[in-house]
Amino acid sequence: MKNFSIAKSRRLRSTPYTSRIEKQGVTAYTIYNHMLLPAAFGSIEDGYNHLKEHVQVWDVSAERQVEISGKDSAKLVQLMTCRDLSKSKVGRCYYCPIIDDAGNLVNDPVVLKIAEDKWWISIADSDVIFFAKGLASGHKFNVKIIEPTVDIIAIQGPKSFSLMEKVLGKKITELKFFGFDYFDFKGTKHLIARSGWSKQGGFEVYVQNAAAGQKLYDHLFEAGKEFNVKPGCPNLIERIESALLSYGNDFDNNDNPFECGFDQYVSLDSEVNFLGKEKLKKIKLEGIKKKLMGVKIEAKEISLPTSKKIYDENNTLIGELRSATYSPQFKQVIGIAMIKTPFWNTSTFFKIEINKKSYDGRICSLSFT
Amino acid sequence: MKNFSIAKSRRLRSTPYTSRIEKQGVTAYTIYNHMLLPAAFGSIEDGYNHLKEHVQVWDVSAERQVEISGKDSAKLVQLMTCRDLSKSKVGRCYYCPIIDDAGNLVNDPVVLKIAEDKWWISIADSDVIFFAKGLASGHKFNVKIIEPTVDIIAIQGPKSFSLMEKVLGKKITELKFFGFDYFDFKGTKHLIARSGWSKQGGFEVYVQNAAAGQKLYDHLFEAGKEFNVKPGCPNLIERIESALLSYGNDFDNNDNPFECGFDQYVSLDSEVNFLGKEKLKKIKLEGIKKKLMGVKIEAKEISLPTSKKIYDENNTLIGELRSATYSPQFKQVIGIAMIKTPFWNTSTFFKIEINKKSYDGRICSLSFT
Repeated sequence: MKNFSIAKSRRLRSTPYTSRIEKQGVTAYTIYNHMLLPAAFGSIEDGYNHLKEHVQVWDVSAERQVEISGKDSAKLVQLMTCRDLSKSKVGRCYYCPIIDDAGNLVNDPVVLKIAEDKWWISIADSDVIFFAKGLASGHKFNVKIIEPTVDIIAIQGPKSFSLMEKVLGKKITELKFFGFDYFDFKGTKHLIARSGWSKQGGFEVYVQNAAAGQKLYDHLFEAGKEFNVKPGCPNLIERIESALLSYGNDFDNNDNPFECGFDQYVSLDSEVNFLGKEKLKKIKLEGIKKKLMGVKIEAKEISLPTSKKIYDENNTLIGELRSATYSPQFKQVIGIAMIKTPFWNTSTFFKIEINKKSYDGRICSLSFT
Repeated sequence: MKNFSIAKSRRLRSTPYTSRIEKQGVTAYTIYNHMLLPAAFGSIEDGYNHLKEHVQVWDVSAERQVEISGKDSAKLVQLMTCRDLSKSKVGRCYYCPIIDDAGNLVNDPVVLKIAEDKWWISIADSDVIFFAKGLASGHKFNVKIIEPTVDIIAIQGPKSFSLMEKVLGKKITELKFFGFDYFDFKGTKHLIARSGWSKQGGFEVYVQNAAAGQKLYDHLFEAGKEFNVKPGCPNLIERIESALLSYGNDFDNNDNPFECGFDQYVSLDSEVNFLGKEKLKKIKLEGIKKKLMGVKIEAKEISLPTSKKIYDENNTLIGELRSATYSPQFKQVIGIAMIKTPFWNTSTFFKIEINKKSYDGRICSLSFT
């Protein structure tokens, strides 16, 4: 794939760590929530191998927060997600698909319950703040909605636990998955969650004070030398192998949560009120007409700058390949595709053209088994 | 400024013209409404000189539409903008700041009145669709809100009139500024407006059929040879010299329309109901505390990947430079800055550091006079 430069401007916001990662060798960016998100430090495969064995520090400031506070905040947050939050607890993170009136996805954030009347919605790449503001205005909810200054540093990889214990003390190792608490580093308290956009384990530091965050960022590299720490970023290979879905890549506002396999987060039998609830009941009753599936392709490389239609052996359009990569684990190309009924049967075979050569592919589960 | 690649993926949507502009020599992209928007074909200054003398064809598909139709569509569109649309006419475009409950800007689109009950909001870079969906849901408006498949081709530059007359016939020359009508090209009717994001004159073709749009795109280059047609894109130099403001660059959701000089589009004395009206009345009464102004700097070059604080001669922070370029017309660097009161007095001088050298600057009007 040919390389094109990114034309920087204030609109593609820099982060408190941008000058650091540029000295550390970032080579490619993507844009996420109108902000620079590093996409590569040289080879993606080198980054993948390192992430699975050691520890990386990521500038994921682009994972912006929508802060909803005030008397009606719980009501508004619940209205936006199909997941029942009535038993949610302060200090916990919740993966919450956000749904519109049509039952389609608006975003798939992690929601942090900061207090009974204060929530952070840690968003994927769409302007949830304007959805929330529109709803709050229409319903005359008593809420305050802002994008707070929060610039997340993620520490990911199997050695992230040792590094974080060294830097922040034993207590951080007691944090449960998707739990968060406050930890002191050189006089600044940081909200830290055990979370992150990889399956290699790790933490996310919700930095609210840029100077303190930069100090922590630098210290993580100092203290991390013995763990072979490197700068990194969400890794295309690792995230596809781990079936971590990406809003905008694998699904968008034309897809509903059942089509994306989010069934466990759709609380249709609950008492809570959320947008699209009746519509989703109807969809569940009638059945879905397309579904996100894994694919395996007998090829050794692929670059997918945009989606690609997939045809079966009879030349029938069966779906659309939305993300793909060569997988060192499976020793072939794997990907995520939206497949039409009835073709999502995992035995469906197809042909696909990559670089003008035809390859065999087959549909499998999202875990590539 | 160091170059970084853009990491392409489905989330950064391609357009029907992407493969064409990549063959034609696009060198840099920006991301706008989650879509690729070309930012350079080689030298920006060459593009500027060509645009001011000849004609260019631009892939501005990233200028997405939010289509609002149905019984309550006029009510919803009016609710979102501070501009009085009660006398608006079908077939006309309206520059309409979109405002939230706090009186701050959400976007600054051009609104096309397609029919009494159908509107296209031709948006700058923020997800207006979710603001509209939130408001419609909260107010229980009877509307349908979609992002239609519309991929705009802009034809810009002084020779755009001759080129469009050659391709579409004499009738297109009768189109008034910010008017639109339907024109046939090889059997497909295209909505064409006399508009575009330059001050060199031109048209925007709202392409709804990708194949027909590609045919038109190719034909414009064939027919345009005699007018020295070239591929192009919104040009940083031309747009700053022309004081065409950019949402996200020059202003954002932390700024209100008075701070951006949009006073003529704020219909506080009208009868119409829109978000933030009372708040804007209060702001007008109390006066604004910051204002977008032009700046001139005694330097011959600048690259501004992000905003830059500006201090006056006494080292007092007076504002923030948000966009800047070397201007061939003014033979110095010019820019757009948000300046605090009382420093927006156009005689204010300041010092600014560019590439570790200090330069003299002064504040001027947005038209750089």
